[in-house]
Amino acid sequence: MPNPRDLGLPFAGRTGPLNAITDLPGLEVGHVTLISGEGAHAVRTGVTAVLPCGKTGAHTVPAAWFSLNGNGEMTGTAWIDESGGLSGPIMLTNTHSVGVVRDAVVAWGKSHGWAEAWSLPVVAETYDGFLNDINGFHVTPEHVFEALDSASGGPVAQGNVGGGTGMIVAGFKGGIGTASRVLDGLPHTVGVLVQANFGAREDLTVLGVPVGREIPDLLPVREESAGRDGSIIIVVGTDAPLLPHQLRRLARRAALGLARTGSVAHNGSGDLFLAFSTAVPEVAGGLEHWRALPHTSLDPLFKAVVEATEEAIINALFAADTMTGLHGRTVHALPHGRTLEMMRRYGRGPDAD
Amino acid sequence: MPNPRDLGLPFAGRTGPLNAITDLPGLEVGHVTLISGEGAHAVRTGVTAVLPCGKTGAHTVPAAWFSLNGNGEMTGTAWIDESGGLSGPIMLTNTHSVGVVRDAVVAWGKSHGWAEAWSLPVVAETYDGFLNDINGFHVTPEHVFEALDSASGGPVAQGNVGGGTGMIVAGFKGGIGTASRVLDGLPHTVGVLVQANFGAREDLTVLGVPVGREIPDLLPVREESAGRDGSIIIVVGTDAPLLPHQLRRLARRAALGLARTGSVAHNGSGDLFLAFSTAVPEVAGGLEHWRALPHTSLDPLFKAVVEATEEAIINALFAADTMTGLHGRTVHALPHGRTLEMMRRYGRGPDAD
Amino acid sequence: MPNPRDLGLPFAGRTGPLNAITDLPGLEVGHVTLISGEGAHAVRTGVTAVLPCGKTGAHTVPAAWFSLNGNGEMTGTAWIDESGGLSGPIMLTNTHSVGVVRDAVVAWGKSHGWAEAWSLPVVAETYDGFLNDINGFHVTPEHVFEALDSASGGPVAQGNVGGGTGMIVAGFKGGIGTASRVLDGLPHTVGVLVQANFGAREDLTVLGVPVGREIPDLLPVREESAGRDGSIIIVVGTDAPLLPHQLRRLARRAALGLARTGSVAHNGSGDLFLAFSTAVPEVAGGLEHWRALPHTSLDPLFKAVVEATEEAIINALFAADTMTGLHGRTVHALPHGRTLEMMRRYGRGPDAD
Amino acid sequence: MPNPRDLGLPFAGRTGPLNAITDLPGLEVGHVTLISGEGAHAVRTGVTAVLPCGKTGAHTVPAAWFSLNGNGEMTGTAWIDESGGLSGPIMLTNTHSVGVVRDAVVAWGKSHGWAEAWSLPVVAETYDGFLNDINGFHVTPEHVFEALDSASGGPVAQGNVGGGTGMIVAGFKGGIGTASRVLDGLPHTVGVLVQANFGAREDLTVLGVPVGREIPDLLPVREESAGRDGSIIIVVGTDAPLLPHQLRRLARRAALGLARTGSVAHNGSGDLFLAFSTAVPEVAGGLEHWRALPHTSLDPLFKAVVEATEEAIINALFAADTMTGLHGRTVHALPHGRTLEMMRRYGRGPDAD
Repeated sequence: MPNPRDLGLPFAGRTGPLNAITDLPGLEVGHVTLISGEGAHAVRTGVTAVLPCGKTGAHTVPAAWFSLNGNGEMTGTAWIDESGGLSGPIMLTNTHSVGVVRDAVVAWGKSHGWAEAWSLPVVAETYDGFLNDINGFHVTPEHVFEALDSASGGPVAQGNVGGGTGMIVAGFKGGIGTASRVLDGLPHTVGVLVQANFGAREDLTVLGVPVGREIPDLLPVREESAGRDGSIIIVVGTDAPLLPHQLRRLARRAALGLARTGSVAHNGSGDLFLAFSTAVPEVAGGLEHWRALPHTSLDPLFKAVVEATEEAIINALFAADTMTGLHGRTVHALPHGRTLEMMRRYGRGPDAD
Repeated sequence: MPNPRDLGLPFAGRTGPLNAITDLPGLEVGHVTLISGEGAHAVRTGVTAVLPCGKTGAHTVPAAWFSLNGNGEMTGTAWIDESGGLSGPIMLTNTHSVGVVRDAVVAWGKSHGWAEAWSLPVVAETYDGFLNDINGFHVTPEHVFEALDSASGGPVAQGNVGGGTGMIVAGFKGGIGTASRVLDGLPHTVGVLVQANFGAREDLTVLGVPVGREIPDLLPVREESAGRDGSIIIVVGTDAPLLPHQLRRLARRAALGLARTGSVAHNGSGDLFLAFSTAVPEVAGGLEHWRALPHTSLDPLFKAVVEATEEAIINALFAADTMTGLHGRTVHALPHGRTLEMMRRYGRGPDAD
Repeated sequence: MPNPRDLGLPFAGRTGPLNAITDLPGLEVGHVTLISGEGAHAVRTGVTAVLPCGKTGAHTVPAAWFSLNGNGEMTGTAWIDESGGLSGPIMLTNTHSVGVVRDAVVAWGKSHGWAEAWSLPVVAETYDGFLNDINGFHVTPEHVFEALDSASGGPVAQGNVGGGTGMIVAGFKGGIGTASRVLDGLPHTVGVLVQANFGAREDLTVLGVPVGREIPDLLPVREESAGRDGSIIIVVGTDAPLLPHQLRRLARRAALGLARTGSVAHNGSGDLFLAFSTAVPEVAGGLEHWRALPHTSLDPLFKAVVEATEEAIINALFAADTMTGLHGRTVHALPHGRTLEMMRRYGRGPDAD
Repeated sequence: MPNPRDLGLPFAGRTGPLNAITDLPGLEVGHVTLISGEGAHAVRTGVTAVLPCGKTGAHTVPAAWFSLNGNGEMTGTAWIDESGGLSGPIMLTNTHSVGVVRDAVVAWGKSHGWAEAWSLPVVAETYDGFLNDINGFHVTPEHVFEALDSASGGPVAQGNVGGGTGMIVAGFKGGIGTASRVLDGLPHTVGVLVQANFGAREDLTVLGVPVGREIPDLLPVREESAGRDGSIIIVVGTDAPLLPHQLRRLARRAALGLARTGSVAHNGSGDLFLAFSTAVPEVAGGLEHWRALPHTSLDPLFKAVVEATEEAIINALFAADTMTGLHGRTVHALPHGRTLEMMRRYGRGPDAD
């Protein structure tokens, strides 16, 4: 499927070759997608693994996180705050499977020789209980192992895959999205991967255009809730050398990218953002040797985080397909044709810039 | 001067009667504007005072704050975090006059019988050294007393006034701006006042339209710096009853409103946001009695904060006039006609909605 | 077993009837203790459940947390920070069983009608891998259900029980400890429960006496590590009406109680503290109605937290028995007689005050 | 005056040559002490300046801070959090003179060529209004310049000097104190300087001995307040190479040292702690090059911070002399003889270890 940029939407900035978080050298992503059953037994969920330096690279990378709205879970954050790093993979799944994924990451680490570093895994979630039988606890340790073992570089599947399988954005089908930016003047890349499951229809904007307000139809029937709940996990990676407190600055900028899609961060939303660098310090002579961009060089990174976050969210929306799940509920995909037409009408369509 | 909403820009939401932070009953704002001299002796600065409950109301109100980017100063924040409240007025001025304003607030409090509560004043700043002889330290205690003594309800002067006198936004003249929202379904108001001094021209968007990119001229000659530095102080008030940790949620939403104007929160920017409620708890029987909206009722407030922040910033831009200051430097006002024409072109102009 | 206070150690302050966190009316504690096997298959672990208002009381209570040293896990903290509350029980277990406990709490909640509130459980841990086959993952959902279902008020078992079964303090056997304080002048109680697993022998002090330095023997053979790792989870409860940001103040005071036992908060230690109030706000007319002690009344609570934390830790040490576990390793109990003799010698023994 | 360690109190650990924060090479301390007048016009206050690398060394050093109880002011903290550093000197004064000191530091910086880095000075305070006419605003810019210009290495005056002139600890005369530790196994020093003004008599402990409870007399007549208010600023410096988030860990440990003197961090206390490293990163090739001790090497630093904080506070108490100030109020010095006798009685006196 062509992504929105290829369809002509005038996103700013220059992407990496894949326009994906895997533009970071060595980074690997793995998805396990669970789609089976119907009615009360509909399974529409999964697991996504992000390994910042892959399965054979560094186990610990500099990291920081930020909570825009903490109605969600991300395990391992106390140690990220304390140590300025995260060890092991970053896992995304549904709200009620965080535990099984967490302990399975410990076990996987033990069996893969990452033993020492695996006690405090990072697992984040969004809630897919509208489409998925979330209280059936369908994610197993084996799914976690599979997501990890199958992780690879290269293009990243988006939309209804992995942890994003059953997710919803602005009443349209959401899920996994990714994008990247190559910096001007700095030989570095910023990559973003989102598990997007947030927002109200009327708030959705695409490149400043009030798309949500212009498509009042195609709403899911929401017998369950008023429909504003949901969450977004945003994972920001870069190969720029940065200290942990600088990565916190990047994590905070993800909020600004999210805002560009119209979010006001609803009460029910777990908007948790993680940032890491794959530029790992060297250890020599009993000391860590870190390189870091000076603060005065960070504006291009800040801009890249904002832009790539916005684009990753829109990519998730364009990539996701209509899905019918739990109790026969249907969530529609964003209608591409209508959206593109509207973008043109607002001077932001193909050939706009 | 008509504000942008009156000119036809389709801002969402319903404003209070004044579309100003003074739509909060009892709240008072005072400005002292210092404009004198030329060349090396150009004074273009001032002081703005916000008294949440006026000079005769409660001295202490529930409050919280958030730093999107901490390249700035807001005094009194340790006690805001600890106590969940702020005592006395909120003062805005230039970066190098924070101290004189702070101590003068203590003195003013002593002489006005607010003695006990005045030891940890809240003073915030943005940098006006491009237009103002900031190292001449032209703000005096008397200016502070005047801003406080002259504070009142009613319409709020915007643009080149008070602490905002010498400020710059996206290479246009900035300064003080304000806006408000009346909530749907809740009998409450949200008011926002900004001292706006941030951003790069190419990033500026108005209601999603890339206005900055379309006006590459009218830039100040910036011999001094590359021109991305600057800051924004955002003051959010409401009469909705909220607990301090809920006000922190409001303060954080100011970032989302700022993002809608294109900001990526540059390294040089002190983006500090304060939120307070004028619904003060009662004390009886040795206990404080608080009322609070439940979290599940907060989404309309979150949206109001985002919208009013965005509109207050654009109001500051439209209200400010071209100014010539230090060393003869000129900063141009946003050209209204060109901006409105552009808004129309992008489907967001007068009569758009 | 008589506790240290009954043995004559001059702890300050007045305890509740049980000198336990269950002095809070309605609060329930449940332990499941797993002790079986030997050698490489030694299981020495368990689960402890704390239900702030019991199984039939309020599901959500005001809460806050503090990380003195974040080398540990406490799930659910993003939502505690955001909402100022915690829903459901507080669970303590070993480091590698956090996940299974978390998801089991979700399931238990679903089957007990606590459905809506159970998505973000609070589970904390300390590491028992010196005595316990931690990578055998011996904790199961059934153990979690049992800890919850069997929870009750009344006296609390201490030492080698529940989540504390395999824990170590200062090279002596540690585990679960509890204590309480009745406030002077306020009709409220503070209760503390710790899962204690921290510290180096030479640092241990009891009521200011350098007990650890005076007992250099009875050390575990630590082939595995230098022996400073470990952690402490401190749970502080009160029936005093407090706002969430005030509870954060209580959580922070737990650090001062910990310091009185000699801790310097080693790098390897997950020192995570939770505070909650069982005084739940009423909901009426669409508003929450909170009562809160004014800040100026909090000093007695602060002192109670510090004192009860100190005493709970010493209680854990006195209650724990010598244990032999994984690979035949033995960890000795604190020798009561020698300790009491030493306390006397330093003017802090029985009959000292 | 001999300090407590020289008098035989068995403080643990090895001090640097001066047992002062000036054991850090290049660090300078300057005091201006203002003692004049009597009755309603008694001036008992001052200013203390700490220049981490002296007047000729680096202007910006890695830094972090921690608020144990935020009833106080420390300016500049938003930028410390954001940037991981502090620029310029650290200033200590009384509560109502923070502003004048802050702006004077800006001016001093401008006139000494530290221009670029001086916009967000770090000024902290404690309240001396019991002995000092604090609302007379007796500190002037000239006093600030003098404290800075006269700063030097070498021995540091303690007790009734500089910012500590009018301060009170546990009802005894307090003020400035300092201590240091040389690390075992690491070629680094930790230095601590406190402005001590906190605590209630009955809580005071010295090396675990309940000294305060044993000296119920010699209390100041406190017509003004119940006497628990007060604060402590703790400045921790080291020449160990550390990243900002590691320095935050050091700042937090100051709380544990404070706890050893009996503090429970009263509501009225501004307990604000700052940590910095004089090991400044090098800049080359557009990158900062940082060295940092690994986290696993930090335990000796943590212990040093705790020990040196405890000793610096006790040093302040022993160094301070009885003072009569505002309205003829007298605050007594800690009686050395009685204290030493008591320490002996509790097995912690001279020759104890």
